[in-house]
Amino acid sequence: MRKVVIGLSGGMDSTTLLGYYLEQGTEVHCCSFYYGSKHGVFELEAAKAVVKYYKSFEYEITHHLFDLADVFANFNSALLLFGGAIPEGNYNDETMKQTVVPGRNLIFVSIMAGLAESIEAEVVALGVHSGDHHIYPDCRPEFIKSLHTTILRSTDDKVMVFAPFLNDNKASILLQGYSFTFPVPYHLTRTCYKNQLLACGKCGSCQERLEAFKIIGRKDPIEYE
Amino acid sequence: MRKVVIGLSGGMDSTTLLGYYLEQGTEVHCCSFYYGSKHGVFELEAAKAVVKYYKSFEYEITHHLFDLADVFANFNSALLLFGGAIPEGNYNDETMKQTVVPGRNLIFVSIMAGLAESIEAEVVALGVHSGDHHIYPDCRPEFIKSLHTTILRSTDDKVMVFAPFLNDNKASILLQGYSFTFPVPYHLTRTCYKNQLLACGKCGSCQERLEAFKIIGRKDPIEYE
Repeated sequence: MRKVVIGLSGGMDSTTLLGYYLEQGTEVHCCSFYYGSKHGVFELEAAKAVVKYYKSFEYEITHHLFDLADVFANFNSALLLFGGAIPEGNYNDETMKQTVVPGRNLIFVSIMAGLAESIEAEVVALGVHSGDHHIYPDCRPEFIKSLHTTILRSTDDKVMVFAPFLNDNKASILLQGYSFTFPVPYHLTRTCYKNQLLACGKCGSCQERLEAFKIIGRKDPIEYE
Repeated sequence: MRKVVIGLSGGMDSTTLLGYYLEQGTEVHCCSFYYGSKHGVFELEAAKAVVKYYKSFEYEITHHLFDLADVFANFNSALLLFGGAIPEGNYNDETMKQTVVPGRNLIFVSIMAGLAESIEAEVVALGVHSGDHHIYPDCRPEFIKSLHTTILRSTDDKVMVFAPFLNDNKASILLQGYSFTFPVPYHLTRTCYKNQLLACGKCGSCQERLEAFKIIGRKDPIEYE
């Protein structure tokens, strides 16, 4: 593959996805979206730091930033700045469903596919994984499969969707990331859902990350409050 | 149906779609998108005029405006302000393919579905029709069908996609619009693709509109240059 368009949130999964494609010598176009989430600014800074890091080693990356705060302004979600509080506890708790953002991956991938068609990239890729399936409908295999068909139809068969970690969990993503010849800079990534610089270590998202590092027997290199 | 979210470009098809749902007593949420097309400002003004007109007769309408000019800024299309010239001639000519905007309907519907989920509307509707199928992949039945499935998956079966004119042509859409108890205000609609206030009458889009009025034996109520 010559060119790929990926969604880069600045979290550990999408950063591993970036490493995965760079490892293959692919020209990567990263798309980051600001959509008014509580952790949005911190996430975006992480994405920028990750791109800057890889670029300093002369990898071929383009970073596209999209400000969709106005689009999501009236959407309902605890993840958004004007939504309710971020629930604490396990990532699979029912309360975590409050963090679903309506249409998020669909909107992001639609824009990524439009960009891909315009720059003649054949693939748009997402870092979704099995840990997301329970809570987020737009991370499930049946969604990704249908989205793949829809994007093919929308682009006259020019662009397809790929989610290489779809059936992996966060621990196996980490294992892959550490196995690359050029390891993924997890110290620059951002996972916490809260509106604060330092990761809280308590929200479902932090808990899931910490659990993944524990499983593979490594220390999470980021600082927690 | 209690609530519907529709795409309202300000053209005759989507305006008929609005009339179609108002005729059924549905609460309609119209979404208009500015995406940097040559005719975008005029289209948006038409959409606003149509909504204002219906509201003056106390119909229940909400109008949501989305500015996506930055999102589409690097997309390739003759329809966009920084793209090539709008081709003249028949709507089905191969040259009209230059006016395809990558990902347009997919991006619009994705946003509409996110809004629908947030306001608990069960349907997002589009005014696409058979005249669009040849040129625009994102207006074809196979795309709409796949999109319907994708939106259901994305929203946990809460939102579906409907395109009531999918197999109609522009003339039959006009016939429906004139048959409503409250006829559609075609005099306020905008169809021309060109960057000018008055419709040119020459671009493929104008030609197709004029042909539809001719077929049903009515005079097009808008002014041409």
